[in-house]
Amino acid sequence: MPGRGTQKVNKKALADFKVGVDNVIFSVDTQQNRLLVLLVMRQDQPFLGQWSLPGTLVRNGESLEDGAHRILAEKIRVNNLYLEQLYTFGGPSRDPRESPSSFGVRYLSVSYFALVRFEEAELIADGVSGIAWYPIKQVPKLAFDHNEILEYGYRRLRNKLEYSPVAFDVLPEVFTLSDLYQLYTTILGENFADYSNFRARLLKLGFLSDTGLKVSRGAGRPASLYRFDAEAFAPLKDKPLVFI
Amino acid sequence: MPGRGTQKVNKKALADFKVGVDNVIFSVDTQQNRLLVLLVMRQDQPFLGQWSLPGTLVRNGESLEDGAHRILAEKIRVNNLYLEQLYTFGGPSRDPRESPSSFGVRYLSVSYFALVRFEEAELIADGVSGIAWYPIKQVPKLAFDHNEILEYGYRRLRNKLEYSPVAFDVLPEVFTLSDLYQLYTTILGENFADYSNFRARLLKLGFLSDTGLKVSRGAGRPASLYRFDAEAFAPLKDKPLVFI
Repeated sequence: MPGRGTQKVNKKALADFKVGVDNVIFSVDTQQNRLLVLLVMRQDQPFLGQWSLPGTLVRNGESLEDGAHRILAEKIRVNNLYLEQLYTFGGPSRDPRESPSSFGVRYLSVSYFALVRFEEAELIADGVSGIAWYPIKQVPKLAFDHNEILEYGYRRLRNKLEYSPVAFDVLPEVFTLSDLYQLYTTILGENFADYSNFRARLLKLGFLSDTGLKVSRGAGRPASLYRFDAEAFAPLKDKPLVFI
Repeated sequence: MPGRGTQKVNKKALADFKVGVDNVIFSVDTQQNRLLVLLVMRQDQPFLGQWSLPGTLVRNGESLEDGAHRILAEKIRVNNLYLEQLYTFGGPSRDPRESPSSFGVRYLSVSYFALVRFEEAELIADGVSGIAWYPIKQVPKLAFDHNEILEYGYRRLRNKLEYSPVAFDVLPEVFTLSDLYQLYTTILGENFADYSNFRARLLKLGFLSDTGLKVSRGAGRPASLYRFDAEAFAPLKDKPLVFI
């Protein structure tokens, strides 16, 4: 019964969109061995008061990346933030504002991804909105389809850890092989690989250089401190490689 | 001098978008050892008469994937087309229709990627538009930023060849190791790897099974025919792996 409570939609007409950018920003608290994701509390409808990924809608003349950087600059101070595009979510009715009784416009989300160093990232509390580094295991039900976007980002993170030297972006300048293993374990879960295999594999790849320094922690033998040798890694950059 | 030939744009206002989907469909002519990409000739302004990736604008109630499949169904018949999202291009002024003197609406492109089996793909000539499998090396200047999208898709293809068993989606059911090497060479270029290393590596991965059959081509010794053993590959599916 057309016309009764439903609005007739021309199926062949082009859809009109607003475009959002949503950021999946990860960090690792290497002291506590926790993987964290940056969440903000929504100050507007819909989903007022619910946690969400930090995002915004793209403005006139603004590129997608510029929009993503604009909103992040309001939430977090961090050096050299490198955002990587993750995925675009654009199915109909992913946003309640799309309903014909609301704005009748589609909302598409282009998501971005970054991994930042915990010690160097400073959250900006603006006195109004809530903001938090949430441990990944304790993330609540998020606004919109943000749990799905987060899950996609988490998969990308694990993938990057396996295929790229992204771990060295978040470790301190010098680290022990045990620190490195711990970081992998924090993100990939226990038993992703045996420690001695992991250690042998990473050393064999040839871009960890021994600083000659050692560090004592607790009871064990002093452990060697390594650093990531970007120069030794350079020729491997475009080669297929697995890290674990 | 504001107001003189320029239109004042509210920089804080949200941009309005139409959303396009553009498909980078690759195939490999294994007879001629050519990597091909599907192009269509534009029948509308802008870029009337220029080659472009097959794309369309998303309609009311249609998901991005549905839009991508809809336009492809008009251009090509192929079994089980699996489209993978590639990247979203959304910078301002990527489309001449965005100009304030035209529609003043932004055009965003979500690109999709597929690799299809040449023998099974049938182009649909509708009597109006041009359509062609273009050898990648002979692709002309395309409409919009489609050369850039194609380049991105080509990088993804090379990447997938290195890290995933995508090659077996386009090879015939049974093939020689030399056929497989030739396919890699066609896409990655000459000398991506030494043949005997490549051969040893692929056999060691353990999912190529010798059919016991041999084939004679030209003068050399008969070569063994292999097939991809999906069952043997299954446990490796989510493991980091390099194929070359």
